[in-house]
Amino acid sequence: MAQLNSTRIRHSVIFKLKHAKGSAEERDFFNAAKKLGAIPGVEKFECLKQVSRENKFEFGISMEFANQQLYDQYNNHPEHTAFVQQRWMKEVVDFMEIDFEVIS
Amino acid sequence: MAQLNSTRIRHSVIFKLKHAKGSAEERDFFNAAKKLGAIPGVEKFECLKQVSRENKFEFGISMEFANQQLYDQYNNHPEHTAFVQQRWMKEVVDFMEIDFEVIS
Repeated sequence: MAQLNSTRIRHSVIFKLKHAKGSAEERDFFNAAKKLGAIPGVEKFECLKQVSRENKFEFGISMEFANQQLYDQYNNHPEHTAFVQQRWMKEVVDFMEIDFEVIS
Repeated sequence: MAQLNSTRIRHSVIFKLKHAKGSAEERDFFNAAKKLGAIPGVEKFECLKQVSRENKFEFGISMEFANQQLYDQYNNHPEHTAFVQQRWMKEVVDFMEIDFEVIS
């Protein structure tokens, strides 16, 4: 029997958009991105502004999953894959993914 | 009069240690790091394991500050500067800082 992996994961991505800062295109991107927060399993969904001058990224998106199975479901969800194809790959010029598990 | 900046900041750093995985030296580093969570102004202090294969970092530390002034106080606090000098600069081989503001 498969063992359920119950480790909570905080998934985040930091990125740069090709759009001008404060542009309508930038707002439209985040309006589309926010719909990802409604995909089943997604908790604590946040759109973030990256303000450290120690890295080159301008924005972040963060969310949590109760376990790896829910994270995998999100990754394969048609609304997520459509967003990646139709928006992310066309509008994001650089990004880095970070996945955290809390050390107990 | 100076205006109070009341934007909440989530400060995090992702990093690699020079120590062997699961070593006593690694545990000792985190035992020292956890004391940073007691510095005034620090909220939601967490030590994290970085598990994405899309980047080269192995750990994270995350915390929040209610405003930039409290973040600055933390940065200049003698317990923080001592940790940076005595532990961080000697035991961390690579790192990246990320600071997030929540987009309302």
